[in-house]
Amino acid sequence: MEGTDFLQGSDLNEAEGKVTGRNHARILSARKDLIGKSLSLSYREPLLIVRGEGQYLYDERGRAYLDCVNNVCHVGHCHPRVVEAASRQMAQLNTNTRYLHPNIIDFAERLTSCLPAPLEVCFFVNSGSEANDLALRLARTFTGERDVFVIDHAYHGHTGDLIEISPYKYNGPGGPGPSVFTHQLSIPDGYRGRYRWGEPELGLLYAREVGEKTAKLAADGRRPACFIAESIVGCGGQVVLPSGYLAAAFEPVRQSGGVCIVDEVQVGFGRVGSHFWGFETQAVVPDIVTMGKPIGNGHPLAAVVTTREIADAFANGMEYFNTFGGNPVSCAVGLAVLEVLEMEGLQQHAFEVGEHFKKELGELQKRHSLIGDVRGLGLFLGVELVRNRESLEPAGPETGQVVELMKERGILLSTDGPYHNVIKIKPPLVFSRDDVASVVENLDEVLGRM
Amino acid sequence: MEGTDFLQGSDLNEAEGKVTGRNHARILSARKDLIGKSLSLSYREPLLIVRGEGQYLYDERGRAYLDCVNNVCHVGHCHPRVVEAASRQMAQLNTNTRYLHPNIIDFAERLTSCLPAPLEVCFFVNSGSEANDLALRLARTFTGERDVFVIDHAYHGHTGDLIEISPYKYNGPGGPGPSVFTHQLSIPDGYRGRYRWGEPELGLLYAREVGEKTAKLAADGRRPACFIAESIVGCGGQVVLPSGYLAAAFEPVRQSGGVCIVDEVQVGFGRVGSHFWGFETQAVVPDIVTMGKPIGNGHPLAAVVTTREIADAFANGMEYFNTFGGNPVSCAVGLAVLEVLEMEGLQQHAFEVGEHFKKELGELQKRHSLIGDVRGLGLFLGVELVRNRESLEPAGPETGQVVELMKERGILLSTDGPYHNVIKIKPPLVFSRDDVASVVENLDEVLGRM
Repeated sequence: MEGTDFLQGSDLNEAEGKVTGRNHARILSARKDLIGKSLSLSYREPLLIVRGEGQYLYDERGRAYLDCVNNVCHVGHCHPRVVEAASRQMAQLNTNTRYLHPNIIDFAERLTSCLPAPLEVCFFVNSGSEANDLALRLARTFTGERDVFVIDHAYHGHTGDLIEISPYKYNGPGGPGPSVFTHQLSIPDGYRGRYRWGEPELGLLYAREVGEKTAKLAADGRRPACFIAESIVGCGGQVVLPSGYLAAAFEPVRQSGGVCIVDEVQVGFGRVGSHFWGFETQAVVPDIVTMGKPIGNGHPLAAVVTTREIADAFANGMEYFNTFGGNPVSCAVGLAVLEVLEMEGLQQHAFEVGEHFKKELGELQKRHSLIGDVRGLGLFLGVELVRNRESLEPAGPETGQVVELMKERGILLSTDGPYHNVIKIKPPLVFSRDDVASVVENLDEVLGRM
Repeated sequence: MEGTDFLQGSDLNEAEGKVTGRNHARILSARKDLIGKSLSLSYREPLLIVRGEGQYLYDERGRAYLDCVNNVCHVGHCHPRVVEAASRQMAQLNTNTRYLHPNIIDFAERLTSCLPAPLEVCFFVNSGSEANDLALRLARTFTGERDVFVIDHAYHGHTGDLIEISPYKYNGPGGPGPSVFTHQLSIPDGYRGRYRWGEPELGLLYAREVGEKTAKLAADGRRPACFIAESIVGCGGQVVLPSGYLAAAFEPVRQSGGVCIVDEVQVGFGRVGSHFWGFETQAVVPDIVTMGKPIGNGHPLAAVVTTREIADAFANGMEYFNTFGGNPVSCAVGLAVLEVLEMEGLQQHAFEVGEHFKKELGELQKRHSLIGDVRGLGLFLGVELVRNRESLEPAGPETGQVVELMKERGILLSTDGPYHNVIKIKPPLVFSRDDVASVVENLDEVLGRM
């Protein structure tokens, strides 16, 4: 590189174990000069990661870290079959969807075969944000309305329109507050919310808000364009929706002509274990499903799948063209990920390892009063830390400390939730029982010293 | 593939020349079932393209097509050095920017070294649409204003907020018309516009509108957030901005506190030949530059580069995180593209071949009255067809017919402009003088038979 002595990717590989701390410091310093400050790094002392394999990441000294948070590298970092599919197609053809190509058809066919009818029409894009932005456009074009119901603390993406429907952003630091078109619903949180686990029909209790807000809109002569929700609340704190919630929430929306969007960007593709999609655990079929992160195992790929009726209404004369979306390379990658998921039985694996993990974390909870709640489905888990199990006072700083201490032990976790007191666990699906043992053993020791 | 007999990408490669028409028909039919109708195909009889190399695309029968329109595969389809950089990095690590990695720094450093000060802070994203959407957010956050000046018939991307500032979309079929925040400027078209080539200070004449509209906003107590323009008008018909236009347009915007965005998604990275960026031909320095298409030679990669002041204002507490943006693979690809551009001297090549091409098209214009205008910079050219050189009656249907006939001769072109009467020429930069001769010879024959 002109004017620098940074190691290139390939040199770094060769130099693993030989690289000095100066490179770390120089990269850190160059990043401050060259990259927007609104992008932060993980951990107090950021990691320089140079290699990935399976559920492991390696720093410049060759030290391994167990990756418990990367739900993007879904079938394992640098899965050879995915890398090969991408490399081969890249060398052969990568052009846009104005020409015919079999890959987009093969991928669309395989993807829709994983979805219930009538979810049968695909749009391929490059990120979860592009997917949710398009879903919003589909809903607004189909209904002719603008109002949106969202769950508090939700994050649906970084475009201007998505910031407007992401309470996590518009109510967070630097946020402008809600727009007149955005209507927030309580997080249906059975642990900390207004209604708690044990109440009969918890899902219906929380979903009542949707009917009330729909009625309020109607009183103003308005109707919702859509309801949008993740099938497990992510940034809101890994909150599992209570049974019946989505079905009851969908009803008033649909009755007033709105559409129901489920955002599977974080949890889709077998992660929940019992099902391929999170929404299936709620026994509903949305009108629009959005997918991102895991769909390409790290390759910039995402998708929107919807009904023919909604897709046809969108084809009102205005073209939707996405330069990179649906290209032969992206589709080869998407197809390879689906093939690996099936060949390696990763959904069933996520179910078994996830159940075991949750049970083990439940055992830890018995010994450590700091653990207020253990929850999640499959390999999408949350551990909520509290200072007091009666008042539920959030143990935010302690949670951050646990994550830092675990990192020192070579285990990568992160925090989330409105009080930053939920440890997020969403590893590549190849995560093993041994990995579970390692996390639990280290967490036991770390919590014991708090 | 389950339930299909489509050929896989790799099988297709092996089967080149053996594939029957049935596959073409089956892919076409499956596409209608599986892909949203708002995505259209090129040409009356769409092509099944299975391989790309340099400036050539190959169909399933092995027939070569000279690609004169793909400004995405900038350094040539499947350039081996770019493919190798991507493949190698994919096999090693592909994770997000919450960790340190040298590639993002290497790429950011190299990219900013191609830009004038004070354009020094980078944001990496996955598409030109994500880049322009972010640019709009940067401008609006920095200024606290919402109003935007755009050039008529411009297209800046497919997100909800970008459709709102893209007259090509909001005034086109299915479009809702302009929003209250969008203010349209005339295309500064010296061939067909209100002021024509030959007028002294043509650029200033067109730019006066910006001052007028800024004054009108001010009278309402409003100020513009930004002015946004491509450095050569693309969808508006390959219109070269008259000298002095951008400088004069920027002035009133900046005086009223707004920022100036130049969209280099179509024309950046040496395509204009005389300079690396289109805006340099106008002797201005924008406050924000957006890049897409060619930056990754087809890989989903894009960027926004801005001043420290604007980037810092955006870091108001709200995080900007882009899951795939700036990952080690995307940055390895971006870096390889910049290296190939330099090593192969492609900017200079674009200048020489582009000048030659324009001259040859000028010769054709002397023989064919249908050619009203030949224009462009480097390898971003337009040929405007008219039925009458006095009235400038657009020859829209004829232009479509020329493109179809050229395709039958193995040459891929496309049309654009408000009247669909401009032939667009924007090939991979490896386009040769022989390719020019081939296009000109065939165009001569096709026009001779019209």
